[in-house]
Amino acid sequence: MTTSTPHTTAPDPIRFVGETDGHLVLIDQTKLPVDLVHIECRDVETVWEAIKMLRVRGAPAIGIAAGYGVIVGLQTAVDQSADQFEARFHEVVEYLAGSRPTAVNLFWALDRLKATYAAEKEAGKSPADIHQALLAEARFIHEDDRQVCRAIGRHGAELIGSGNGILTHCNAGGLATADYGTALAVMFTCHDQGKSIHVYVDETRPLLQGSRLTAWELVQRDIPATLICDNMAAQVMKEGRVNAVITGADRIAANGDSANKIGTYGVALLAKAHGIPFYIAAPISTFDLTLPNGDGIPIEQRDPVEIIHGMGKQTAPENVQVYNPAFDVTPAELIAGIITEKGVISPVTPENIAQTTAS
Amino acid sequence: MTTSTPHTTAPDPIRFVGETDGHLVLIDQTKLPVDLVHIECRDVETVWEAIKMLRVRGAPAIGIAAGYGVIVGLQTAVDQSADQFEARFHEVVEYLAGSRPTAVNLFWALDRLKATYAAEKEAGKSPADIHQALLAEARFIHEDDRQVCRAIGRHGAELIGSGNGILTHCNAGGLATADYGTALAVMFTCHDQGKSIHVYVDETRPLLQGSRLTAWELVQRDIPATLICDNMAAQVMKEGRVNAVITGADRIAANGDSANKIGTYGVALLAKAHGIPFYIAAPISTFDLTLPNGDGIPIEQRDPVEIIHGMGKQTAPENVQVYNPAFDVTPAELIAGIITEKGVISPVTPENIAQTTAS
Repeated sequence: MTTSTPHTTAPDPIRFVGETDGHLVLIDQTKLPVDLVHIECRDVETVWEAIKMLRVRGAPAIGIAAGYGVIVGLQTAVDQSADQFEARFHEVVEYLAGSRPTAVNLFWALDRLKATYAAEKEAGKSPADIHQALLAEARFIHEDDRQVCRAIGRHGAELIGSGNGILTHCNAGGLATADYGTALAVMFTCHDQGKSIHVYVDETRPLLQGSRLTAWELVQRDIPATLICDNMAAQVMKEGRVNAVITGADRIAANGDSANKIGTYGVALLAKAHGIPFYIAAPISTFDLTLPNGDGIPIEQRDPVEIIHGMGKQTAPENVQVYNPAFDVTPAELIAGIITEKGVISPVTPENIAQTTAS
Repeated sequence: MTTSTPHTTAPDPIRFVGETDGHLVLIDQTKLPVDLVHIECRDVETVWEAIKMLRVRGAPAIGIAAGYGVIVGLQTAVDQSADQFEARFHEVVEYLAGSRPTAVNLFWALDRLKATYAAEKEAGKSPADIHQALLAEARFIHEDDRQVCRAIGRHGAELIGSGNGILTHCNAGGLATADYGTALAVMFTCHDQGKSIHVYVDETRPLLQGSRLTAWELVQRDIPATLICDNMAAQVMKEGRVNAVITGADRIAANGDSANKIGTYGVALLAKAHGIPFYIAAPISTFDLTLPNGDGIPIEQRDPVEIIHGMGKQTAPENVQVYNPAFDVTPAELIAGIITEKGVISPVTPENIAQTTAS
């Protein structure tokens, strides 16, 4: 069931309503920015479809939704025998795992629920008690992400003065997480603190996460924001409108080299050319310390149709070659600081990264 | 009347078929890159509509089309009295002048035909003779632009080695001119000379002249080309695929500061960061020596709808602010050379510019 509600200020991207017999409410991100549509997930099939069809996207958000998906999926089995309940649990977990097989956070969240199940079973708990413990774990995953985002926001906000202009690329916002996001958490926190800021939003071709999602999140919160095409960032910087650049990251190597949405590396170079500090905002879980530097991060190539048929209409010759890398890697030396829930790593050195991630 | 023909190699963007009783054939640029449609202009109204609706665009191309538009428009009056013929001439010129009142080359071409008319009238020529002289002038405008483009191509090709990758932004191609363009003239000439080159084409948001027109022109000529989103240029440079950047220019100040499509300045900065030479290719007529530098070049702001409704579909919240500058200015110090029909100005200094433009 879907309901369409008028735009309000900062709706939660993910909410669980009620107790073990409750339901999950998601924002359908595929309908943004034109319509704010909430999906009420009262069965696991609806959760599966929402993850599969990218109605909920962003690594932390997928993990959180899957956790609550298990709760909803078990509602039909809670009055059955312990064996039947356990069979249903594994059925639901496997089913959700197939919704988006490449999403690491999906498996991470389901593994946490499996560990909870095993511990509760070991303790001889009833299906109803196990259901309750699983809900507590799903809520913990949700709340933990919220706390991480809020901490990133607090640490990052210390870098920003009132009156500052901030440029961001892609969407590292609340929609991808429990509520506050990573890069956008800094802007939301500045706004909460009463600092006057202005955000410049790269539209972020080819999939336009900047215009579709980031601009929408900022408008929802009444934060002054200006949308630009990616190729306008240099001009906006030249005009003195930008005091800091903040983006998210998908993966950070041990030396600080950071993989993020294609275009981030270029923005970092432009920031350097204008003497503007460039920051990454990301949770500690983004660090992959097995990688000494960014050279080992594979750059996924995406479908040419995203560029040739931008927004559903053909805008290039069918037979032209296309290069469509999903990510690029920004070298650590271009990054003034990495904003984490444990504080800002600056300067970005292997030593400082090792120290903060181990603390 | 329009005819749709299968794609062939490098069709002329503008052709005049026959003599004074002939007709003008234009490529309808609004139908590219999906369909190659030719418009046969057998009356001045069709020429007017083609200019008005941007079916023909690009400063030189508009001037050339207007010149031939006068020839077609006079066909109904050539058997009338000298007075009636002259009245029709002024009617046609005024009518065409209203098709795109901000296009400088439109007025420049019509003024040349007015001067021709006055000289022929002064010499006591008949309507048929004047019609013939006007056609010769229209053909001269066309041929002169062709020669300018070819010369730019020859001079620019000396800068490019076989095996080079070249990145370009927007469309400075044949469609905007008599046939070879400015920046693209360099690539076409390299290809004619048998040099193996590969062109990286920025799609050029918001209006996608790169993907719609430049990619199409290169594919038509079988020149290896790869289309990228604007924000991928830095990554392509980092991977060592680009040996030179060449773009056009709309206006060049006396010190070499160059106004061109938004995004050009950013590309020039990225080229510098990767040690890649950045060139401007433009005819001498592009220099505005009344401007000491680029500070005096006004930056036109365009309609937010181009960004919010990219390609006809809403992709951003309606109420977000938008910054949509049409141009930016690349400072002379980022430009390795300006490729003109009189040779390459390098280094780009006021002295070298004064010398070449005066020669």
